[in-house]
Amino acid sequence: MGRPLLIRNARLADGRLASLIAEDGAIRDIGAELTPPEGAIVEDAAGHLLLPGFVEAHVHLDKTLMGLPFIPHIPGGSVAERIAAEKTLRRGLTIGVEERGGRLIEQLVAYGTVALRSHVDIDSEVGLKGLEAVLALRERYRDLIDIETVAFPQSGILRDPGTAGMLDAAMAAGADLVGGLDPAGIDGDVAGHLGIVFGLAEKHGKGIDIHLHDGGALGAFELRQIALRTLAAGLEGRVVVSHAFCLGELGHADFAATAGLLAKAEIAIMTTAPGPVPMPPVKRLMAAGVRVISGSDNIRDAWSPFGNGDLLERAGIVCDRQDFRDDADLELAFSLVTDAPSRVIGRGPAVVAVGAPADFVLVAASSVAETVAKRPTERTVFKRGRKVAAAGELIGWSDG
Amino acid sequence: MGRPLLIRNARLADGRLASLIAEDGAIRDIGAELTPPEGAIVEDAAGHLLLPGFVEAHVHLDKTLMGLPFIPHIPGGSVAERIAAEKTLRRGLTIGVEERGGRLIEQLVAYGTVALRSHVDIDSEVGLKGLEAVLALRERYRDLIDIETVAFPQSGILRDPGTAGMLDAAMAAGADLVGGLDPAGIDGDVAGHLGIVFGLAEKHGKGIDIHLHDGGALGAFELRQIALRTLAAGLEGRVVVSHAFCLGELGHADFAATAGLLAKAEIAIMTTAPGPVPMPPVKRLMAAGVRVISGSDNIRDAWSPFGNGDLLERAGIVCDRQDFRDDADLELAFSLVTDAPSRVIGRGPAVVAVGAPADFVLVAASSVAETVAKRPTERTVFKRGRKVAAAGELIGWSDG
Repeated sequence: MGRPLLIRNARLADGRLASLIAEDGAIRDIGAELTPPEGAIVEDAAGHLLLPGFVEAHVHLDKTLMGLPFIPHIPGGSVAERIAAEKTLRRGLTIGVEERGGRLIEQLVAYGTVALRSHVDIDSEVGLKGLEAVLALRERYRDLIDIETVAFPQSGILRDPGTAGMLDAAMAAGADLVGGLDPAGIDGDVAGHLGIVFGLAEKHGKGIDIHLHDGGALGAFELRQIALRTLAAGLEGRVVVSHAFCLGELGHADFAATAGLLAKAEIAIMTTAPGPVPMPPVKRLMAAGVRVISGSDNIRDAWSPFGNGDLLERAGIVCDRQDFRDDADLELAFSLVTDAPSRVIGRGPAVVAVGAPADFVLVAASSVAETVAKRPTERTVFKRGRKVAAAGELIGWSDG
Repeated sequence: MGRPLLIRNARLADGRLASLIAEDGAIRDIGAELTPPEGAIVEDAAGHLLLPGFVEAHVHLDKTLMGLPFIPHIPGGSVAERIAAEKTLRRGLTIGVEERGGRLIEQLVAYGTVALRSHVDIDSEVGLKGLEAVLALRERYRDLIDIETVAFPQSGILRDPGTAGMLDAAMAAGADLVGGLDPAGIDGDVAGHLGIVFGLAEKHGKGIDIHLHDGGALGAFELRQIALRTLAAGLEGRVVVSHAFCLGELGHADFAATAGLLAKAEIAIMTTAPGPVPMPPVKRLMAAGVRVISGSDNIRDAWSPFGNGDLLERAGIVCDRQDFRDDADLELAFSLVTDAPSRVIGRGPAVVAVGAPADFVLVAASSVAETVAKRPTERTVFKRGRKVAAAGELIGWSDG
């Protein structure tokens, strides 16, 4: 695992200055004065704040257009129209997932992301090609970032014949989770769609991540069906529903009933804090016992020309949409892109503590709240005790 | 006015590469091949896109806490509570408006802003001190940015005795516009508040900028009263209403009636595209003939720990909230922070054209849409034909 690391003069979240030793990929010691282990690389943090590395809960490595000239967005009013527009665009791309996704990974690492969950389209046209490319990227970038994959039926399952079998093959090929998409809005069959998704999860012993755009009472119905199936399958703590805009639209009773079931099934809700549609109310969900996490979703792809993958910016967007301003609220937003998704994807808590993975970020700020508010651009990123990025650039990275 | 400027190899908005000559603060020539005037400074734009400089329609130079250590936000549920919290905080600040506001101006210039409208608090406690400081800043930074001031009654007029007289004095002291604030919600007297504001505008021959947070039917009523008074006073084209959240909450008939009056009175609506509250619907307002502009509002002050003054980021926030994704929509968002506010504050159109002010920004992008989507951080900023900032830093700036 290379040489040990000693970081001196780092500010911890509680404000005190300390040193930290990392060895074999984990934090071995934290204290006021530490003796460098033999052969240690010594870094002076200059009083910068030492934060746990950021965890990206929702990204699409296969979709990004990074590395290509700017492609104007093709308008599409509905999810179905956008799916069609994306497929048309995808056919003409001149560079593959390996290059586009690689560029995105490098950008995410430079921003301070140390682990991510990527959805990967599985459909009758692309088959498993996208998944194979993302699995290759996972291998290529294994020293920089941990990558988890979701076999994601972007074109639906029932409406795109053959997809169920390909999802099965994708799980056999190494995907970490079974994906789903708008059982009502896209596939028109809630029980049918969820039956396949949960069946595959049980067959392969894996978790689930379902993208739910359906709104209002329909979306809430689907959420409750997902929760009931999660309980029936014993998949508590292993199911994420992404987006779930409907949670921002429900009356008190409907919200309470739905959130209660989500909490019981230990389902996590992933929100990007979208601007144009209602969003899940973060504090109300957490008060009901529902885990909430945040992520970037589309980054310069057929769905959006925007996005950069900076999870500190994402935390700020959550604050903007939820009117979070005081320190406790900014710390809560920070946890949505660090500790909460780290637990959800099975890495355990994201903390700077002895025994934890030596995945952290140094920023020029005095506190977590200031970090979220100011979004410092100069960050020094460490993965498994090795410095991997500084000032927005990867360090010593060779694709060799 | 210093040496002439020749920029070579710049991309214009229509995509072609061209040269540009600036002299005496204005653009003198644009063409495929231009001969440098005698003594000209020659810049190679390396194919970067030449954009008009950004225009900040709504900022508070006196409020920012820049230059101070991070101050946690003091929660306040209502506008009135926040006003009180701000006053408490203000009393204890160890550095003045000259330094805090100066730091903010320098950051805005580095981002590409060439002109701004700043509200300046006028109340019974601070009197004209904030205005005097901002007028001094305007003088100090006159070669970097054009500054317009609004005498802004942040604590109300009727509820803060003596403020009407101080607003009068502020206008006599050089403020450019009369401000107003929630005639109903803060002062509890729509006719009384507007009577004073419009009376001062008529007395001093100046325009108006009113901050309206009041929601729903109440806010719409106030908007219509403002429009009627604007028509009666012959102030068409010289009144801005900032925020006007209520426009995002109205039913069809109420919206049509209100927007119709706003259009007739040539009132511009300034929106920050706020996250936690409804916002004015940009395209519906423009379709009704209402001018819309955007701006930053609070930047690291008692109202918000967030904000940086980057108007490209602001354009992106407008896009997020309004679901703008295709090139035409991104160009529209860009116009809300360039051409539209430039016209509203009386500078005329913001264009790169012969005869226009030589205030522009070079960015590494191929089109306006790509600029909004990617928000390039490296920008070269020119004010009156002189390079004033590059790569986020001011150039050759000395406070003398």
